[in-house]
Amino acid sequence: MRDLLPADVAVRDHVLARITEVYHRYGYQRIETPALENIERLGGGQGGENEKLTYRVLRRGLDEQVPAGTPLTDLVDLGLRYDLTVPLSRFYGNNRNTLPQPFRSFQFGPVWRAERPQKGRYRQFTQCDIDVLGEPSVLVEVELIEATAQALAATGLAGTTVRVSDRRFLTALVDDAGVPAERADSVLITLDKLDKIGWDGVRAELAGRGLAEPVIARLTDTITGLGGVAPAKLVDGLSDALPNLGEDALTDLATTTGALAAVADLSWEFDPTLVRGMGYYTGQIFEVTHPSSAGSVAGGGRYDKLIGRFLGTDVPACGFSIGFERIVDLLSTAPATERVAVLYESDVDPATVLAAARAVRAEGRTVAPVRRSGKFGAQLGRLAGWGYTSFVHLRADAAPQEERTINT
Amino acid sequence: MRDLLPADVAVRDHVLARITEVYHRYGYQRIETPALENIERLGGGQGGENEKLTYRVLRRGLDEQVPAGTPLTDLVDLGLRYDLTVPLSRFYGNNRNTLPQPFRSFQFGPVWRAERPQKGRYRQFTQCDIDVLGEPSVLVEVELIEATAQALAATGLAGTTVRVSDRRFLTALVDDAGVPAERADSVLITLDKLDKIGWDGVRAELAGRGLAEPVIARLTDTITGLGGVAPAKLVDGLSDALPNLGEDALTDLATTTGALAAVADLSWEFDPTLVRGMGYYTGQIFEVTHPSSAGSVAGGGRYDKLIGRFLGTDVPACGFSIGFERIVDLLSTAPATERVAVLYESDVDPATVLAAARAVRAEGRTVAPVRRSGKFGAQLGRLAGWGYTSFVHLRADAAPQEERTINT
Repeated sequence: MRDLLPADVAVRDHVLARITEVYHRYGYQRIETPALENIERLGGGQGGENEKLTYRVLRRGLDEQVPAGTPLTDLVDLGLRYDLTVPLSRFYGNNRNTLPQPFRSFQFGPVWRAERPQKGRYRQFTQCDIDVLGEPSVLVEVELIEATAQALAATGLAGTTVRVSDRRFLTALVDDAGVPAERADSVLITLDKLDKIGWDGVRAELAGRGLAEPVIARLTDTITGLGGVAPAKLVDGLSDALPNLGEDALTDLATTTGALAAVADLSWEFDPTLVRGMGYYTGQIFEVTHPSSAGSVAGGGRYDKLIGRFLGTDVPACGFSIGFERIVDLLSTAPATERVAVLYESDVDPATVLAAARAVRAEGRTVAPVRRSGKFGAQLGRLAGWGYTSFVHLRADAAPQEERTINT
Repeated sequence: MRDLLPADVAVRDHVLARITEVYHRYGYQRIETPALENIERLGGGQGGENEKLTYRVLRRGLDEQVPAGTPLTDLVDLGLRYDLTVPLSRFYGNNRNTLPQPFRSFQFGPVWRAERPQKGRYRQFTQCDIDVLGEPSVLVEVELIEATAQALAATGLAGTTVRVSDRRFLTALVDDAGVPAERADSVLITLDKLDKIGWDGVRAELAGRGLAEPVIARLTDTITGLGGVAPAKLVDGLSDALPNLGEDALTDLATTTGALAAVADLSWEFDPTLVRGMGYYTGQIFEVTHPSSAGSVAGGGRYDKLIGRFLGTDVPACGFSIGFERIVDLLSTAPATERVAVLYESDVDPATVLAAARAVRAEGRTVAPVRRSGKFGAQLGRLAGWGYTSFVHLRADAAPQEERTINT
């Protein structure tokens, strides 16, 4: 966990404002859920590995001495959310009758994970998600991709590529290669490491998992064969390579392919090696990559069976999550802003100082009084370092001088 | 704790944007601190009664079975912040060398208190604070009052009054009346209840605390005598009424009085009954009231000795906190916005639907696709309820129709 200094917050506010502007124009509506959720819900299996990283909160009103034989779980009733998807499911279950159908949700807020301290990982960090709940058509997938690509571009991040795949394709892929059903997930986890460990690493790990050589060969052949297929030939290519791939998945991919072709300034590709970690995806999945970032800068997909676990009835759902912290790291500076100091000697009447500031502010500019101290040049240097771009010098024994630029 | 629906968030975002705009123009810079602080710091005595309401977080890596005889405190190392002042003190201590001097801090974020459930009280709520650290002059007090009054007006809240007093005045007041020093705090706590229990209630409670009749009479006479004093006569009035009131407090009040006279559209008064709950105030204190709100909508004051408790050396500090939740409750609606639905029949190609939405969006407007379902008029009614203001109807067998307003 860390403090965010004014310069940090300025970058974050800039990024958030640009993303918000785009998502609002797409009709996404921001909601907020509490940071604390019931501990049972956070441990319900939906959060995968993240569940183990939940910060647990003590019940109120406990005795200060813990009775012998008390399990830790008896002391706890709440936990800090580790993602925004579990709260969204609960939120939708509680409020669906008053929400628009479909509901376009925009969430932005902190989540907490009790990670081991390591570089670039924070125990509190911000997530930024959009989700469409209640609409089964891949129209939603295309809209999410278009909106997120545009939001990323609006932040100033140019040159992103959207990678698309489908969980149904992955299931057909491992099934076609002869991977036993109970090993499918672990094979996919290995495949997901391709960009880190390369094909040799993937093959070795699959062999280590006890997969036969022909199975591994079939898997890698199918994937590499689909690697460079042009969008227009994608559906035919998939249909040929995997006869076991269902008609619905092919139709959806055809629709997505066709609709994405009409999106301006979008770079996208089908990526047969894209897996996505979370097990809850049921249809198309996506990630956005950027040349300057090793990991993806956004990711998401369809998860039609997740909300049903809470609600009892399935609700079609699809979402896209922007890696807010990563984007902030990539951009690192906010647009420069003007900032005026009213630099006053200590003998100037406060009312005079405040009036001078008021006059600058009336022009719609940012201004703050700063007391003169130390050597003049050195103080100007400090002012520049703090982001002041010009100053007005006030002395009790002289008329106010013209505003002067601070040279940096 | 509660979920915030899109309409709730819209009001909050509106209020926050207006406040932020004003505070930025005054040179306040937003910072963020983590929600979790060390439990020792949260229990350090600075938080008053709020410390008892801290949500405590379990250490990581504990055995799931608590060993016999373990005190609860051994299980806990972090807590959720109950205000933004304790974190600000720590933040300033950690970062002061890189911060502007004086530092104008703007904080906005959630805090948590394990309150008993009751109407209008939330266990997670938002605080909105500005503070100036490092400048002893009451120039700061006037700036804070001016900025906060303007921020409140910008949210749409008209008709506020700023009430000003001074902790040094209160100390002189109880001392002059003959209240023993060790009872001064409890007398002030009683006085603070005046707007709730009236003069009869205050007198009865003071008598119940064992104060002699002449002491009570002297207290109430001094206060009522100062009640209606015009700003121009305030310093003379105080000086006459309380010969024990120090020169510094009188000079500060004279400066504040003079400078506030120059602030446009400001309604303010000296309020000898204003106390403010927290014990850490050292100089002028203020509250903002509004006719529609029983409690104050903002409050603050100078606290020159608080940051020194962490830092070892005192840092002059003064702050103003806006009662964000209260203001949101008073305003309750955000400005109306336009919202277009692309209402499509199920047989329309998704690419066509998305293209229609794109065309509306290109005009800078907010638009979202919605699938046609049920009776047309009933669906329009639902759309209106969800905030849509117009629609474009798309059918596979007909040319797109003109955009139509949804009548509500």
